[in-house]
Amino acid sequence: MRTPAQNAELALLLEVASTPKPGNVDRERDFPDLRFEHFLAGAVGAQPGLRAAANGEPVGRAFERAVAGMSEQGGGNTQFGALLLLVPLVRVAGAGGLTPAATRNEVEHTTVSDATKFYRAFDHVDVFVDDPPADLADLDVRLGKAAIPTVEARGLTLFEVMEASADEDGVAAEWVSDFRRSFATAEYILGNDGAVTDRAARAFVDLLADEPDTLVAKQHGRETANAVSGRASELANSGFDVDEVAAWGDDLVARGINPGTTADIVAAGLFIALERGVEV
Amino acid sequence: MRTPAQNAELALLLEVASTPKPGNVDRERDFPDLRFEHFLAGAVGAQPGLRAAANGEPVGRAFERAVAGMSEQGGGNTQFGALLLLVPLVRVAGAGGLTPAATRNEVEHTTVSDATKFYRAFDHVDVFVDDPPADLADLDVRLGKAAIPTVEARGLTLFEVMEASADEDGVAAEWVSDFRRSFATAEYILGNDGAVTDRAARAFVDLLADEPDTLVAKQHGRETANAVSGRASELANSGFDVDEVAAWGDDLVARGINPGTTADIVAAGLFIALERGVEV
Repeated sequence: MRTPAQNAELALLLEVASTPKPGNVDRERDFPDLRFEHFLAGAVGAQPGLRAAANGEPVGRAFERAVAGMSEQGGGNTQFGALLLLVPLVRVAGAGGLTPAATRNEVEHTTVSDATKFYRAFDHVDVFVDDPPADLADLDVRLGKAAIPTVEARGLTLFEVMEASADEDGVAAEWVSDFRRSFATAEYILGNDGAVTDRAARAFVDLLADEPDTLVAKQHGRETANAVSGRASELANSGFDVDEVAAWGDDLVARGINPGTTADIVAAGLFIALERGVEV
Repeated sequence: MRTPAQNAELALLLEVASTPKPGNVDRERDFPDLRFEHFLAGAVGAQPGLRAAANGEPVGRAFERAVAGMSEQGGGNTQFGALLLLVPLVRVAGAGGLTPAATRNEVEHTTVSDATKFYRAFDHVDVFVDDPPADLADLDVRLGKAAIPTVEARGLTLFEVMEASADEDGVAAEWVSDFRRSFATAEYILGNDGAVTDRAARAFVDLLADEPDTLVAKQHGRETANAVSGRASELANSGFDVDEVAAWGDDLVARGINPGTTADIVAAGLFIALERGVEV
């Protein structure tokens, strides 16, 4: 039987293999400088950090380790957001009993030390983030470890850091809402038929239909994010025609639109589904 | 830096991602009951066995463990042959100094106990093998652990088992020839340009041009294996035109021809190339 750390790595691999996931690198899509094999290497590189999380290492330290390993490939940021979801989930699964309540308990008990490791993780890889509000300028994650004195002076836990950006960031929003969409995605995958990668690709469109992608909002504005979500709704409502979905992907890529946060949630959902016994 | 066990797993992933590899499952090809995601799960499942090998566990035991983990997916045999090459290579790399001479020393020192674990590995998964010669009938690997009393009575080491089938099996042939083609494939990959998966796909055609695939010979006869090798030569000599190679793949698949042993050697070559610093 695969361990939680193995299932987390497999979830990262199945996520990138699932196609079509419009606007994202997937089994049938490379970007010029960010290719499928970078995601394979990212998943393998994250393995020691994921194993540490399963063995009870604190979330912040395990996350930093996972990101450091993930970054050892030439594509840049491949799975930062997915790991930010997976690490607490793996830690809960490693302790036994992966439920929304146990996950909430896990993230609510993160510490200032976890927050400092989270900031350190940004020193390993370039992550796209928007300018923070003026009152949070000295907590800008792009400062990396330079923000740590502020984090410590204010006594901010990692959960509180996530609370501060939950309105703008879909991964942080999961942290403060019991990983609601991650667990729902797992149920969607478990309740569907066919190859698990096909189910995950449909889950991606369904999630995007449900809520605008926050990475798209940061990079292209809310109006574009809403329009992308609207088109996903149409495709979901008309039955996920694979050719139509793929054609839409061409359009998104041409416009540089990457709903990457939604893909992160698919990875988290795949992990929970694997832990609950979905067969590959 | 990735460990040898991580590089071995990444090699398995890069191998199946490399396309076109005519007649094999790859990034652009599924078979009806053996799909890309089965290889992803197989690679992740093999991880504990690969880690055990890197940590010095005997070859036979680490191999059986890797195969048992690999088998926990619905596609059947995905990477048995590749693991039979990788496990000794990983063990050598884990001890430091991955060279042909060190690898020869490693496999020559395998024991009767290693041979018994090798036979046990066949109980985890269906592997295609041909009928053995009459004088080796009670050493037929398809007997699985039922052959162990014979192995022990004859005092056969795993190296000796490989010697007995080296004429018929390309993986066993590597064991008794210093992993010559695996190391040559690594040099080929290191010496080429472009994405590592594209280099590996060219290496596959080049290997097939160099020698007929033994799995094809077992399943379809030597004449067919020679013809496949001949066509690979033409494609290699005319510059690996990707469309021509892919079209040939359609033809091989239609005829049920799977040069899988050549793919195993590509995986071993990718591992050595990763250990020698090829960048992903």
